[in-house]
Amino acid sequence: MQISELARRADLPVATVKYYLREGLLPQGERTGATRARYDAEHLARLRLVRALLGPGGLSISAARAVLAAVDAPAGSVHEALGAAHRALPRPGSEAPEPTEARALVDRWGWQVAADSPSLHTLAGALDALRAAGFPASEEVLDRYARAAAEIADRDVADVPSSSVADAVRFVVVNTVLLEPVLLALRRLAQEDASGRRFGGG
Amino acid sequence: MQISELARRADLPVATVKYYLREGLLPQGERTGATRARYDAEHLARLRLVRALLGPGGLSISAARAVLAAVDAPAGSVHEALGAAHRALPRPGSEAPEPTEARALVDRWGWQVAADSPSLHTLAGALDALRAAGFPASEEVLDRYARAAAEIADRDVADVPSSSVADAVRFVVVNTVLLEPVLLALRRLAQEDASGRRFGGG
Repeated sequence: MQISELARRADLPVATVKYYLREGLLPQGERTGATRARYDAEHLARLRLVRALLGPGGLSISAARAVLAAVDAPAGSVHEALGAAHRALPRPGSEAPEPTEARALVDRWGWQVAADSPSLHTLAGALDALRAAGFPASEEVLDRYARAAAEIADRDVADVPSSSVADAVRFVVVNTVLLEPVLLALRRLAQEDASGRRFGGG
Repeated sequence: MQISELARRADLPVATVKYYLREGLLPQGERTGATRARYDAEHLARLRLVRALLGPGGLSISAARAVLAAVDAPAGSVHEALGAAHRALPRPGSEAPEPTEARALVDRWGWQVAADSPSLHTLAGALDALRAAGFPASEEVLDRYARAAAEIADRDVADVPSSSVADAVRFVVVNTVLLEPVLLALRRLAQEDASGRRFGGG
């Protein structure tokens, strides 16, 4: 298809599609003339992924470019691809220099994670901040969050399609980025419900 | 205490404390002379909260100001205060105009949430994006996330201190903002562990 049809099918202005081409978020089409190129279903799928990352995923253009590089890199296994995607994704909040406590927690739960896993730093930074704010997370709270996270993650990983490494990577990236806002929104909604039951009634 | 000691105890440069005063994030101290003011333990606690919101919380100055206004507003109940804090907090990702599907899900789970709850829009936006990206969230996935969120939220709310509404509000704000990066980091770490068990070993 031509760029006009690609844009129409993705429900986007042609100018936006051209912008993504210039920014390297969308691979060039196959040249069919001096000013024409042909695009295929792969381009349409990529365009939808780009929209998801930049919109609800909340990624910047440069963060999206890094994530897409991880999607495109030939990975030996789904596990390697997941690691590359996590590394490319922006991390919420700030970081702590030495994630000693985070490492100890993960070890206590028996989780096998790489020594340089970026989420160890995110976790450490948030734990430091809770302490600094005067509300340190108790061991019980952390165990409870870890249990919930493990339940979700086990099934997240079980859902990864085994059809091809490329499909698996796309699935992992989309689900990591887009199920995070789902999880946070659900926690806030469930808090509202729980708070109404406990403190409401007015 | 004077501003120099306040800064020292908060482990911050005096210039940073003055900046927060100018930005209205920290209330002015009690004037004790033309160029002097006295600060107390409340100022120190506020300073730690500001640090947490701007640092690991990842809030902008204006978002932090809105959250602190919710903390300071006299709330009739903890439930009202939680609603005000949620409304002031930035929402991850983009939003959908009509959260019809999100509303239906919440109703199905039997959660009592306000019709204008901002998280309904966050949830709707993320669900739209998952669909647009070609990976719509199945009912089973959403039920699983909702179950995990409800387990966490019930205990979050049970932990809220009942000593005073002010304490409760501070706790709710800190825990909403700072346990979100904890939860996301734990999900990614648990995914890494689960992926290693399922796809690794090479």
